Amino acid sequence: MTHGDRRGSIADCFDPGRMLADLDRLRAFGATGTGVVRPALSSVDVQSRDWLASRYRDAGLEAVTDRCGNVFGCDAVRPSAILIGSHADTQVKGGWLDGALGVIYGLEIARAAKASGRTGRIGVDAVAWNDEEGRFTHFTGSRAYAGKLSIGEYDTAVDADGIRLADAVVAAGYGDLPLRPVSPSRHVAYLEGHIEQGPLLETTGLQLAAVDGIVGAKEYLVTYHGEANHAGTAPMALRHDAVRAMIAFVSRLEERFAALADDHIVWTFGRITVEPNAPSIVPAAASISVQFRSSRPAMLERFAAAVHQTVDEAGGVAGCAKPDLAQILDYVPTPMDLHLTHILHDAAQTIAPGRSRIMSSGAGHDAQFMAPLMPTGMLFVPSIGGISHSFDEDTARGDLVAGCRALALAVDRLLTEIDPV
Amino acid sequence: MTHGDRRGSIADCFDPGRMLADLDRLRAFGATGTGVVRPALSSVDVQSRDWLASRYRDAGLEAVTDRCGNVFGCDAVRPSAILIGSHADTQVKGGWLDGALGVIYGLEIARAAKASGRTGRIGVDAVAWNDEEGRFTHFTGSRAYAGKLSIGEYDTAVDADGIRLADAVVAAGYGDLPLRPVSPSRHVAYLEGHIEQGPLLETTGLQLAAVDGIVGAKEYLVTYHGEANHAGTAPMALRHDAVRAMIAFVSRLEERFAALADDHIVWTFGRITVEPNAPSIVPAAASISVQFRSSRPAMLERFAAAVHQTVDEAGGVAGCAKPDLAQILDYVPTPMDLHLTHILHDAAQTIAPGRSRIMSSGAGHDAQFMAPLMPTGMLFVPSIGGISHSFDEDTARGDLVAGCRALALAVDRLLTEIDPV
Repeated sequence: MTHGDRRGSIADCFDPGRMLADLDRLRAFGATGTGVVRPALSSVDVQSRDWLASRYRDAGLEAVTDRCGNVFGCDAVRPSAILIGSHADTQVKGGWLDGALGVIYGLEIARAAKASGRTGRIGVDAVAWNDEEGRFTHFTGSRAYAGKLSIGEYDTAVDADGIRLADAVVAAGYGDLPLRPVSPSRHVAYLEGHIEQGPLLETTGLQLAAVDGIVGAKEYLVTYHGEANHAGTAPMALRHDAVRAMIAFVSRLEERFAALADDHIVWTFGRITVEPNAPSIVPAAASISVQFRSSRPAMLERFAAAVHQTVDEAGGVAGCAKPDLAQILDYVPTPMDLHLTHILHDAAQTIAPGRSRIMSSGAGHDAQFMAPLMPTGMLFVPSIGGISHSFDEDTARGDLVAGCRALALAVDRLLTEIDPV
Repeated sequence: MTHGDRRGSIADCFDPGRMLADLDRLRAFGATGTGVVRPALSSVDVQSRDWLASRYRDAGLEAVTDRCGNVFGCDAVRPSAILIGSHADTQVKGGWLDGALGVIYGLEIARAAKASGRTGRIGVDAVAWNDEEGRFTHFTGSRAYAGKLSIGEYDTAVDADGIRLADAVVAAGYGDLPLRPVSPSRHVAYLEGHIEQGPLLETTGLQLAAVDGIVGAKEYLVTYHGEANHAGTAPMALRHDAVRAMIAFVSRLEERFAALADDHIVWTFGRITVEPNAPSIVPAAASISVQFRSSRPAMLERFAAAVHQTVDEAGGVAGCAKPDLAQILDYVPTPMDLHLTHILHDAAQTIAPGRSRIMSSGAGHDAQFMAPLMPTGMLFVPSIGGISHSFDEDTARGDLVAGCRALALAVDRLLTEIDPV
């Protein structure tokens, strides 16, 4: 063991009971059955952030909230720090661990670091990002911190009900707060713990994984325009039927995707909207989301080309012209810092010998916006049944504790390297 | 001319200006731009029915409203009558003529009949059916009159927002009214004027059509069950993706329909519902409506067999089991009375020489529930652009007048046959 060699180690000061109690307390904000409903900037989200700020202060950290609702717990007496955290907002119908787990890991490790006397020039800051789940935009909070949220995007972003981000910020009481009170220049590294949100660890009997990269993602919205008409009287040859045109398009695209796919790329047609959506009316409009994710840039480009080719060939079906094509997401695959990944994997092997691996993340995370700014690493714990974005999301308590212990140990080792006393 | 041989004819007493003024007045109830929003039992629908009752009374008819909101204008001094009308409710976003035209034709002809002194033992009654457009059930009002709306169906019917028919009836003030105050045994024939709701008359330059039958319709709801999961982390091979399974099903069904179709059958996939309908979540459920209409029973059966066969073969795609299949509609093709159709066609040829034809109706109408009870006939006027179930629905004023004049003339001729003085 190389940690705790001169002062108390963070891992030794880690308190599993305290960590789990705080995780349960955070779950209570918006708890709905076994799930949590705590969308970004909702009143219950704001309440949870007030509570988080008080917990940071209880730990001797300075609590700093910014205009997007990101809450930092800063070790203000240190000029620089390792930043640890995740997002505290949930999906509209979310699980209790997605984001929340990494937020509480950050709180617990920053708290343990303060208590340990381990830190010298470099402290440990904690953070609870906001709107990772994209109520208003994607990764709103972490992109604001990273300087990647433009004022134009901030001013125009609206949620699915048309509520403006800027108005929700004011309603939350954050309207007068600065956009970037904490500078990335303060932070020497970013670490994020998270549930896997997939089945790989569980199905292979592993407990922990260091993440070597986050997949890239592209998402398109394909929209057909038809003409509403009576479903009994309009002859087939005279129809402009947006749904039949869309079905033909997706069917062709699915064939192309299946022919191009490697074993790792995933694709999803998750949202369909039909107007006016009545059984007896020929559809006037139909749109479908086309999303795919891969860690291989070339594979993403091949799928994107298939989308464009299928759109180009799609005119004239069911009386409809070519559909409109709008790109909604375009995230390049983001590698994690190689050295940090190995520190995390070594720490995980120490905590769970033979039960850790290195894997890539199929989900997007706030970490992908930190990676261009500083060395960034992620650690996964298993998801029961591989289920996430669902009220059924859960992880064994032992795995929750093992993840925090491994992350604390990794911080000890990183500090030993970069801030020897 | 055989009408008006002994007393004044109905056709001679027909007042085009009065008819059009009443049609415009009815349009004002729920007018929204060029369209009308007057769903069954909405407050504006109830207001329009109060107004219709007053117009019936002004014409010397007895106004009778039943529990479903059907409003009759009865020539109470005659022991039996020809019934003329259509429905006064509209689609959620409806046109101004669908139903309303036939209601005002009924009012105008019953009024002209009263004024003409033409009627002897057999009078002319008018009717404004309710909920033809199926806010609560399909053809609620005319089925209630025909004795085809069961009490069980009445008690359990709800609209798309979950509002119960029985509660809407009470809110409308109809709760204490009888279900069938006017008996079909009173009526010797039923006539309904309607817009075509299709392009056939317009594209062939015709003004009127006698309807020889109403197509049959079958509608199914096909529902796939998948499992919600994260669209980035769930490997393709482990997914239970309701949308990809549904797309494959509909694509296969479309192929089969196209191969089986004759020139007249029509089919529509008008409504799609996806749960939770988010781009980043593997869909947990997806349903699609499958509706088709034909005047040929054998063609309907072939399409129905294709639906069943495609469902039977559909298991195992995208990790989903065979979909649930529920039949929503099953209407057999309904022929109109042959003799009445010829009386209507002859009258139409008198009014518009060389510009009338006989055709079948691709839309369902209240008339299909009268046809089993009494000789029933329908008359169509053109729809501009073939458009209906849309705010753009319209018909030339000259065509609206020609339709009413032809229907009045047909009533004169029918009375000459069945009630000679």
